[in-house]
Amino acid sequence: MSTAAEQIGLGAYPSEWRHRHLLGLEELSADEITLILDKAEVFKRAILQGHRRIPLLNDITCVTLFFENSTRTRISFSLAARRLGADSIDFSASTSSLSKGETVIDTAKNIEAMGTDVVIVRHRTPGTPHLLAQNLRASVVNAGDGPHEHPTQGLLDIMTIRERRGHVEGLTVALVGDIAHSRTARSNIWGLKKLGAHVIVCGPSTLVSPRWKELGVEYSWSLDEILPRVDVLNLLRIQFERQYGRPFPSVREYAHLYAMNAERLAKTKDDILILAPGPINRGVELTPDVADGSHSAILEQVTNGVAVRMAVLWLLSGAARDKR
Amino acid sequence: MSTAAEQIGLGAYPSEWRHRHLLGLEELSADEITLILDKAEVFKRAILQGHRRIPLLNDITCVTLFFENSTRTRISFSLAARRLGADSIDFSASTSSLSKGETVIDTAKNIEAMGTDVVIVRHRTPGTPHLLAQNLRASVVNAGDGPHEHPTQGLLDIMTIRERRGHVEGLTVALVGDIAHSRTARSNIWGLKKLGAHVIVCGPSTLVSPRWKELGVEYSWSLDEILPRVDVLNLLRIQFERQYGRPFPSVREYAHLYAMNAERLAKTKDDILILAPGPINRGVELTPDVADGSHSAILEQVTNGVAVRMAVLWLLSGAARDKR
Amino acid sequence: MSTAAEQIGLGAYPSEWRHRHLLGLEELSADEITLILDKAEVFKRAILQGHRRIPLLNDITCVTLFFENSTRTRISFSLAARRLGADSIDFSASTSSLSKGETVIDTAKNIEAMGTDVVIVRHRTPGTPHLLAQNLRASVVNAGDGPHEHPTQGLLDIMTIRERRGHVEGLTVALVGDIAHSRTARSNIWGLKKLGAHVIVCGPSTLVSPRWKELGVEYSWSLDEILPRVDVLNLLRIQFERQYGRPFPSVREYAHLYAMNAERLAKTKDDILILAPGPINRGVELTPDVADGSHSAILEQVTNGVAVRMAVLWLLSGAARDKR
Repeated sequence: MSTAAEQIGLGAYPSEWRHRHLLGLEELSADEITLILDKAEVFKRAILQGHRRIPLLNDITCVTLFFENSTRTRISFSLAARRLGADSIDFSASTSSLSKGETVIDTAKNIEAMGTDVVIVRHRTPGTPHLLAQNLRASVVNAGDGPHEHPTQGLLDIMTIRERRGHVEGLTVALVGDIAHSRTARSNIWGLKKLGAHVIVCGPSTLVSPRWKELGVEYSWSLDEILPRVDVLNLLRIQFERQYGRPFPSVREYAHLYAMNAERLAKTKDDILILAPGPINRGVELTPDVADGSHSAILEQVTNGVAVRMAVLWLLSGAARDKR
Repeated sequence: MSTAAEQIGLGAYPSEWRHRHLLGLEELSADEITLILDKAEVFKRAILQGHRRIPLLNDITCVTLFFENSTRTRISFSLAARRLGADSIDFSASTSSLSKGETVIDTAKNIEAMGTDVVIVRHRTPGTPHLLAQNLRASVVNAGDGPHEHPTQGLLDIMTIRERRGHVEGLTVALVGDIAHSRTARSNIWGLKKLGAHVIVCGPSTLVSPRWKELGVEYSWSLDEILPRVDVLNLLRIQFERQYGRPFPSVREYAHLYAMNAERLAKTKDDILILAPGPINRGVELTPDVADGSHSAILEQVTNGVAVRMAVLWLLSGAARDKR
Repeated sequence: MSTAAEQIGLGAYPSEWRHRHLLGLEELSADEITLILDKAEVFKRAILQGHRRIPLLNDITCVTLFFENSTRTRISFSLAARRLGADSIDFSASTSSLSKGETVIDTAKNIEAMGTDVVIVRHRTPGTPHLLAQNLRASVVNAGDGPHEHPTQGLLDIMTIRERRGHVEGLTVALVGDIAHSRTARSNIWGLKKLGAHVIVCGPSTLVSPRWKELGVEYSWSLDEILPRVDVLNLLRIQFERQYGRPFPSVREYAHLYAMNAERLAKTKDDILILAPGPINRGVELTPDVADGSHSAILEQVTNGVAVRMAVLWLLSGAARDKR
């Protein structure tokens, strides 16, 4: 085992890591977040150098237990597991026994009893991963629990910022769009603030409440007003497929006020960094020229996503082995 | 190869094993069932000790060909195959060419022609696995054919009984619930009787016919009456999702007469063993306190399921290699 | 690496291979097609000898990006990838973010950014693979683009002809059935003509236009007329599930005029070879006695499909590595 770790410059398993689960960035310290990002960078470099099999988790079995569809997050986790030599099994809720009236805990316990070490769960109910963490011996990774948290998304966003800008502390990061329903927003806020960034949440008043100040962030209803002083823009997805009322009169109206386009780009700092968790709606959150321009790091986010998930699975594997 | 087998204490491939397929427990002798269970115990121990890769079937490709949804049985087989180093491919009928009018035999022959050694089939028509066995050179495993047989489920139930009680012979085992539509019931009956157990089928008269006596089992319409003399209760799932008439007035009525609860538990032998093939309906076949209590072996059944399937795949691999 | 290649007699990676993508047989030369077939034969032999893992692509990750359902083509590609040691991930469009308004290019770029080397794409719009090839650094394999091309199907058909007859040059090959909507027909035509075969397209006048002459093939509306002089019949699938008008009055009418049956078989050359890309409609394109008879090579086509895809993935892996 140590050979593969040495070969890519990973170092020994960090004895200071004490978490059995990754439920949210709220629970992590700045040092812990930094540790994950540091290890993710090692894995990213190894992958880019052509190391497609780093056999650190040969004895680990992961299951993606997704109660909401998300092909790309699931594939990102699966690839991360496989690159580390772990087995990765997909348990899709839509074709499963859940329609047969089984509880979520029973389903998860069944999966665990088959010999699973890590359960990666997505569910529309906030707290589902926490519930499983209390009831399983396996490690639990929150891959999105309703509007609550999506910690690996937060981590990959922050990794991309740190990579592009060299640091996170002191930066002003604006999260733009549907803040109210966004687990990505919450995970970003927790992580960014712990690392010393200033965070602004920005969007229509129907989606951005003054109460966000309670989380220690600034809020704004005008993108144009904040544009000149932000270092990073994270353009959250408008989730048309969700069934929430009508937070704005029309898509055109939203794009008119909040879409990043060439005109708005001209008003930003020269080294503005633009992020967007996919899938993007071209012409809604941002225009194609911005999405494909040099300020955009959208595809780096995707690459970093696999690396972050490799780091998380590797760090959790210690606890997964201990419980045997 | 032998090294991996030796390492876990598996012993040589048993020359006395002569089956090319696993179609049902009806076809197996007591010795053959015992052989499978013995090998399954070896595999279980190895897995619990952290052996996640036992490379005995590196040259074997398995396909799960499921014409009925069953995420958990499919995953159990897939995990069993992968733990042995085999390739495992899922062929889901719902997204396949079957809607295009192809026959089941043609579909299976196509899968076989791609280089498949073992076809694991589930179909709602009894005898489908037997039909494939007659038409394929590959080995066929019955993963459930309508209400007929589900041999690996029977084996994992019996393995759990033997493990908990030390033996099967002489025990009184009651199968409770929807006997009429249950392949699990049939496979249990064949296996248990061959190993010398006394079997009672118990449930509402709409689901338990006196004709079951023809299989050499006792029948009863009253759980309360048989409770004091049973050693094992196997509480079969009430399959609400099936389209069979209305065998009882209401779920509440069923639970009133047949659900295992604390009150009924008090009437049983002290060392009663309670099984239930998942997914369970809490409050229908059994109450949560019974499901999660010390008499219940529900999750051990799941763990044993992977081990039994490893044993079956390993035993069938001999024939799979011979046909090359 | 070279050891595995030597062991099966594959030889060195051919320096003359210059393609980064496989978009269609129209783009390949006769020499290139022959090279693929030669390598496919090596892989086929190795597989039949029990080599289930030929670790030539351990550092390659393939994704099947299918916007149309096709379990069997997808599994054939997946098996080909796995037999070579590559990772293979399925990205199913129906459960993906595509319903969320993302463009095909963005989806593919996301998959690529996760560390994918080869994207195997099926889409109902002709030219989709070409669009991706222009926009990705990954290698693209066309697994069917509408009625345009399906090059690996063409290759496996031609491989089967060459295997059974020893050569392709000088043979008369008739493609029978729904020529108008068939990508298989187009790929066969390009490949067969390059290798020197004479091609006849045959079917009802609603599905076979005189304009096919422009591709250098003969056309005929009467199967009975051409039967005595063809060496190979490739009976294309009538795709009832497609939503194209009603090209013939009834299935019975079609079968009456175009189904290969014993009577028609008696009018052919003695060594006639009969192909049919599955899934077949027994009694429509051909009768069961013909499908299962000695002239039929239907299941060999399936076996050859895996071998051809192994050869294609291996040949494309050179470019996939270069772009790193």
